[in-house]
Amino acid sequence: MTAINSHDLSSEPIRKFFGDRNFAFLSTINKDGSPQVTPTWIDMDVEHGLILINTAVGRLKQKNVSRDPRISISMIDGRDNPYSMVTIKGKVIEQSKSGANEHIDKLARKYLNTDKYPAHSPKVTRIILKIRPEKI
Amino acid sequence: MTAINSHDLSSEPIRKFFGDRNFAFLSTINKDGSPQVTPTWIDMDVEHGLILINTAVGRLKQKNVSRDPRISISMIDGRDNPYSMVTIKGKVIEQSKSGANEHIDKLARKYLNTDKYPAHSPKVTRIILKIRPEKI
Repeated sequence: MTAINSHDLSSEPIRKFFGDRNFAFLSTINKDGSPQVTPTWIDMDVEHGLILINTAVGRLKQKNVSRDPRISISMIDGRDNPYSMVTIKGKVIEQSKSGANEHIDKLARKYLNTDKYPAHSPKVTRIILKIRPEKI
Repeated sequence: MTAINSHDLSSEPIRKFFGDRNFAFLSTINKDGSPQVTPTWIDMDVEHGLILINTAVGRLKQKNVSRDPRISISMIDGRDNPYSMVTIKGKVIEQSKSGANEHIDKLARKYLNTDKYPAHSPKVTRIILKIRPEKI
């Protein structure tokens, strides 16, 4: 594993990982200190060197990162070569409700090829987890 | 998510997950309490209700579970439907070097369709992590 700086999110292999419809496996820490891992859609904000994950307020991963912002992400190249993989260690540095509904629509276009996320609900408050990668 | 007993490893959907060449994403706890997640091959011992992961002595995940045996595993159905997923919470209850070389060959047959694991090395001591699932 090679450690590179966060601005290297813009490197070609990393962009390919994020550009394809690969799921990310996001690991967080539960209240009792045990590990949690869950598949999720993923996006990047190249300009600010951030990784973006869209979840809902109150979900386990959102509660976990609110308590302990340290996360780890693992992705494999599901389409071309599962033995090509990327691991990211980082921290959630911000959580933002602003633009989160539009952002999940953007992810639905990428992952589902639909214009709108099909599961919008007034009962769900979406939130973007902004992750600063420390090691890739 | 439905919680079922560990003997339900033998249930048909779970067996399908394990029978296909799906990677498991194994999450463990690092020394500093941060989460770690890594893709891995996976197997089950239905008779004893255990999940088996083959790694090498000294790898990060092996060191982590030796300190804190709590793990979480996430799998998606990579072939048919990535929105079909399984999450497993459990504990490494035993680590066994006995039979670990043969076991990695068995996994190579499943995942690589080769008779022998191609990366055997006298420098590597393989070890089986035996996991008792608590929630599936």
